[in-house]
Amino acid sequence: SDAEGEAEEEVGDVSSSTDYQNLIVTKQNNYTKIVLNRPTKKNALTREMYEEIIVALNEAGKDDTAVTVMTGAGDYYCSGNDLGNFMVIKPEEMHQVAKESGDLLRRYVNAYIDFPKPLVAAINGPAIGVSVTALGLFDLVLASENATFSTPFSRLGQSPEGCSSYTFPKIMGHAKACDMMLFNNKLTATEAKECGLVTKIFPKESFETDVMSQVEAIAKLPVKSLIYSKALMRDPELDLLHKVNEAECDRLVERWPSEDCINAIMKFFQEKNK
Amino acid sequence: SDAEGEAEEEVGDVSSSTDYQNLIVTKQNNYTKIVLNRPTKKNALTREMYEEIIVALNEAGKDDTAVTVMTGAGDYYCSGNDLGNFMVIKPEEMHQVAKESGDLLRRYVNAYIDFPKPLVAAINGPAIGVSVTALGLFDLVLASENATFSTPFSRLGQSPEGCSSYTFPKIMGHAKACDMMLFNNKLTATEAKECGLVTKIFPKESFETDVMSQVEAIAKLPVKSLIYSKALMRDPELDLLHKVNEAECDRLVERWPSEDCINAIMKFFQEKNK
Amino acid sequence: SDAEGEAEEEVGDVSSSTDYQNLIVTKQNNYTKIVLNRPTKKNALTREMYEEIIVALNEAGKDDTAVTVMTGAGDYYCSGNDLGNFMVIKPEEMHQVAKESGDLLRRYVNAYIDFPKPLVAAINGPAIGVSVTALGLFDLVLASENATFSTPFSRLGQSPEGCSSYTFPKIMGHAKACDMMLFNNKLTATEAKECGLVTKIFPKESFETDVMSQVEAIAKLPVKSLIYSKALMRDPELDLLHKVNEAECDRLVERWPSEDCINAIMKFFQEKNK
Repeated sequence: SDAEGEAEEEVGDVSSSTDYQNLIVTKQNNYTKIVLNRPTKKNALTREMYEEIIVALNEAGKDDTAVTVMTGAGDYYCSGNDLGNFMVIKPEEMHQVAKESGDLLRRYVNAYIDFPKPLVAAINGPAIGVSVTALGLFDLVLASENATFSTPFSRLGQSPEGCSSYTFPKIMGHAKACDMMLFNNKLTATEAKECGLVTKIFPKESFETDVMSQVEAIAKLPVKSLIYSKALMRDPELDLLHKVNEAECDRLVERWPSEDCINAIMKFFQEKNK
Repeated sequence: SDAEGEAEEEVGDVSSSTDYQNLIVTKQNNYTKIVLNRPTKKNALTREMYEEIIVALNEAGKDDTAVTVMTGAGDYYCSGNDLGNFMVIKPEEMHQVAKESGDLLRRYVNAYIDFPKPLVAAINGPAIGVSVTALGLFDLVLASENATFSTPFSRLGQSPEGCSSYTFPKIMGHAKACDMMLFNNKLTATEAKECGLVTKIFPKESFETDVMSQVEAIAKLPVKSLIYSKALMRDPELDLLHKVNEAECDRLVERWPSEDCINAIMKFFQEKNK
Repeated sequence: SDAEGEAEEEVGDVSSSTDYQNLIVTKQNNYTKIVLNRPTKKNALTREMYEEIIVALNEAGKDDTAVTVMTGAGDYYCSGNDLGNFMVIKPEEMHQVAKESGDLLRRYVNAYIDFPKPLVAAINGPAIGVSVTALGLFDLVLASENATFSTPFSRLGQSPEGCSSYTFPKIMGHAKACDMMLFNNKLTATEAKECGLVTKIFPKESFETDVMSQVEAIAKLPVKSLIYSKALMRDPELDLLHKVNEAECDRLVERWPSEDCINAIMKFFQEKNK
């Protein structure tokens, strides 16, 4: 199409790092784009992807672009923690692996908390688990009309992360946050917008174009004003966010090797393999 | 009806405490149900009922069920503080009674603040006063479409309680909270849902069935995950909630014997007796 | 019209101070009304108007009325900071003027933070900049259906004020607040109500009558209950609000003489004079 033809003409000033296995990270028109790129697995997060996203966020925070946008390749935004992470663990290593996973999650969420520039989420499809809970740390959440948001923690014997135990009640009130995080209520894009989790919804057909037009408009604003304005809003709660992240990770390190959690995850795989 | 027939078949595993005068408290299918049972007085709260609810919440918090639901018998959820509580007081005892009432209210609200498991409100009809303000301490608020929410404090010369001076601005923003608590604006179920006070609305006809289906689904979730997830959300603000409760009760102990309040309550009874 | 005729009949008990150049301040029926009265300049705020509003709020806070309402004369509520404030400054005076302007803004916002009685905003038309950000400090925000709300800070190289870096995320969530304050998204009255910034919307034709009927109802409530109830809600965050105000003003004192800001304001005037 003509539109694609025009896009290709701009490719000249796109710079791309090729060090990532499961991300596509590009810089263009004063913004950085991070694409979760494991579409055959619905962009489920392996340990390697957590590490790659930490690196990508740290580099984007320091580069010369004004704004960073994160989105998913394929139909899903992200299906959350890859439960395969749990399946390669020998029983005798369980507590050690839980501790290491807690450290990884803590560093992962800190990369969002400490991101100094505007961070935009472009939710192109279903979002699950940690990819939903981290949304409270983004500065703009754009969603396709077919996006959904689910956080089935308690069903899996787990508990909230991504600072959602603090950000979600602040965004939508305590009871609505419990409805998502304790009682597994899945939200449509419209419901997520009504409760403040999503900022804007776009039609599925034009989603990518609409998002990029928003991001390019932001990328033209005076970058220092963006950084200082974000800092005025976030700095007073930075210490609290780090403490919340710490408490959430500590609880998960206790939860993961628990009978509740092991039974729930085994049940998940049994049903999958039926 | 058939539905009722089925319900009766399950009565076998319902255990019920009979110590309460104005509550019906039952345990079944892993949940505890507390029914405010003074329907001829629209479930208005006498001093005895405050005490009974404190006991019922403390016991439910310690029993082996996963979740507790509170609802009202008859057409009302609860018409708030029984103003008859004020009418039996001799002038010379007024300050002493105010002090004792403040202590009772503080203990009553603390029973909600410290409740360790998911607490569900099932608002079957109009809710008034302290039965509305305490909703900010519930983890899920289900309402019948005919429910209403009013907090006519300032009209009665009084001030907010139930930690609503903190929870309501957090849920709906300061101005909307003032509209309810300073300016006596009564909300419909739909308006209460729009501002986050209510989580879900059900049709009047199917309300009880819909609520029980929600509560039974929650009751099947891993209970430790529910408790730990609630704790992650509530623990960081527990101290603050106790301080807010204290400040609100102290103000009411000053307000109750005030001319503003006495005149407003006398006017209320004069109009009622016309 | 008849309506105006009736209004004139009530003028008898209106008392008015005549010391203000750009405000009309009147007292009637137990409420104080502050009208921003520079309609030919869309009620843009000059330094003199900031000072006048500080005096008017301080006096209204101490007078014997129960409630204060602020509105705008003409089509606009307020077009924000008069950018002419920036144009009369010689380059060598720039840092000194920035410091003085920061002091003025700090005192201006403190007058809202510390206002002890209910403060009602009646947004009769477009509202811009500091007239929007200060809304988080009002206790009721009534808007005409044609009102709009814009805060084009970052486009002008500036940053949030009026405690909005704290109040807006609390009212509408962090991302929606960023959409207004970092990304310059202008809200309609309906959108502002949906996110909690506006409490109630009235038709344009009946706006003044509808507002006055609300304000007069509030003015009849027991005034001590209003003051104490507001204090219960606001006192726990008063220190924080003063700190937020301080941080926002400090940042603007740095921003105003910056190249970002000077270039943006020069561009604004060049486009205006085309």
